[in-house]
Amino acid sequence: MSAAESEDEPVDEFDWIDRCLRPLARETPEAFDLLDDAAAIPPRPGYDLIVSADAIVEGVHFRPDDPPDLVARKLLRVNLSDLAAKGAEPYAYMLSVAWPARFGWPQRRAFAQGLAADQASFGLKLLGGDTTGTPGPLTASVTIFGWTPSGAMVRRGGARAGDILMVSGTIGDGWLGLKACEPSAPGLSADAAAFLADRYRLPRPRVALVQGLRAHASAAADVSDGLIADAGRIGRASGLGLELDLDRMPLSAAASAWLAAQADPLAARLALAAGGDDYEIVCAAAPDQVAALRAEAQAAGAPLTEIGRMVAGEGVRVLAGGREQAVVRAGWRHG
Amino acid sequence: MSAAESEDEPVDEFDWIDRCLRPLARETPEAFDLLDDAAAIPPRPGYDLIVSADAIVEGVHFRPDDPPDLVARKLLRVNLSDLAAKGAEPYAYMLSVAWPARFGWPQRRAFAQGLAADQASFGLKLLGGDTTGTPGPLTASVTIFGWTPSGAMVRRGGARAGDILMVSGTIGDGWLGLKACEPSAPGLSADAAAFLADRYRLPRPRVALVQGLRAHASAAADVSDGLIADAGRIGRASGLGLELDLDRMPLSAAASAWLAAQADPLAARLALAAGGDDYEIVCAAAPDQVAALRAEAQAAGAPLTEIGRMVAGEGVRVLAGGREQAVVRAGWRHG
Repeated sequence: MSAAESEDEPVDEFDWIDRCLRPLARETPEAFDLLDDAAAIPPRPGYDLIVSADAIVEGVHFRPDDPPDLVARKLLRVNLSDLAAKGAEPYAYMLSVAWPARFGWPQRRAFAQGLAADQASFGLKLLGGDTTGTPGPLTASVTIFGWTPSGAMVRRGGARAGDILMVSGTIGDGWLGLKACEPSAPGLSADAAAFLADRYRLPRPRVALVQGLRAHASAAADVSDGLIADAGRIGRASGLGLELDLDRMPLSAAASAWLAAQADPLAARLALAAGGDDYEIVCAAAPDQVAALRAEAQAAGAPLTEIGRMVAGEGVRVLAGGREQAVVRAGWRHG
Repeated sequence: MSAAESEDEPVDEFDWIDRCLRPLARETPEAFDLLDDAAAIPPRPGYDLIVSADAIVEGVHFRPDDPPDLVARKLLRVNLSDLAAKGAEPYAYMLSVAWPARFGWPQRRAFAQGLAADQASFGLKLLGGDTTGTPGPLTASVTIFGWTPSGAMVRRGGARAGDILMVSGTIGDGWLGLKACEPSAPGLSADAAAFLADRYRLPRPRVALVQGLRAHASAAADVSDGLIADAGRIGRASGLGLELDLDRMPLSAAASAWLAAQADPLAARLALAAGGDDYEIVCAAAPDQVAALRAEAQAAGAPLTEIGRMVAGEGVRVLAGGREQAVVRAGWRHG
């Protein structure tokens, strides 16, 4: 069939599919062994197929020296985070990758191993996709599929005035983790830097929250572009404003230590809230649903912290250091 | 909401979604007005959802000076071609784009206009996606969705020995069209060069063949990587070999004129068959289905030409100039 694989040989895209991707679809009849350039998903009565897509670009969403297996896992995980925020159970994905020439067999194999690891961790199936060369940076896109019972997708637009805003886990670790990867890491202990860099490289999508969100949340989004921006989108989609109390924002020990060492802790707190790459869930729930939601989240290992509430009007009122802060729009968003 | 749009202003990705993409999803309730970062596709009883993905990279799949609206249409059309080969009716798509900084508002708006034009032409709906900046070339990926009756997807792997191989339209125009875009166009009349360049820039996916393929074909693939390679994949997936008679390969008037002017017409014919970017359909049918399939294709405006047959064994036997030709594997494939 194929010539013997040499580590130095340029990679033929179809050989890569044959050797590295087809094994990832072996137990997925709807993928036709990846020989067909298309998959066929049968209807699942009583369920909606939830679809989302996220791309990552070398130098924008990950660092050129990040290991390829972690890049692959990050790619799946940022997409899994989208599904989790919608209350959808992970099902499958389509993968498109544009490879620079310097990604040879060792890098491609590592990338596929990363996919395999997270397929196993999250019960995800490869359905197909596309692979090509590029003269530019590694660019990879996933379209991810999940299931919810019919009509049960958790929307951004479902919040009501008076609902309580909560966020899972801790905020700011991804943003600080990117800094921790840089040569001039900002006054962090070695342990803290390692913890934060890992948070940047390998998000932990909150799939464990899926059931609780469907049962109790009125609205949810994942925190990819920053807590302020993503909470703001719940407000916008719901036709409401919101108050966000950053003094209550949950922080890791590493982020707290960093914050305490900053000359301007207030600006630093705002930076953590605007930074992004958290892949936590920000959600709203009616006051009478909060206790049940928090209990389920706690039991699922993804505790929620109350950080604000939905109000009539529009826009985000940010409170920090006990008073309202002006938040500049720039910096909320990925380039 | 947003600052007034200036032609020179750097484009914020979310502003682009708001202004240019949300109008494309306006009549698509499953896309939630693109406010939700996810779409929900309800089950369609009796139908399979067919899923395929294709990416295009500036400098690899299109030329940097190709107009952005045509790039967008090509992106949709190479994906529509995949659906057509599977016998699937077009339904919807997810879009991921990584934009270089030089693509400002005019280019982005043109790109969205191209999407809108082909959404209308092909009855396609935008469901969502992702948009980001890139330091590299424009890179765009579509995951496309179509419908077939349950189990009716036309496979690559369904051919049987003795089946007749056919191809739609004409072969080689895309490959010649790329040459025609270059400053040193190879001895083509102005009319021929314009015809061929248009074939390269704007594929015509054979959506009209969907019904006929489902009713009569045993296997099909679209011709994106070259007739020899894509026909070969039908053989491989079906566990068969095939004979391909390139003397019967259908050619446009422009390609015929070019061929007649070549010093080595046999090598030139092989180059047309290996070139790719045809976006025609190569398909197999049992001998007793050929007349009906060809009649339906003719009526649909996409006539089929017999070009070979499936045989026991493996590999592709290429006949041209009345005898068997050795075909080099390299050159069958996109970089």
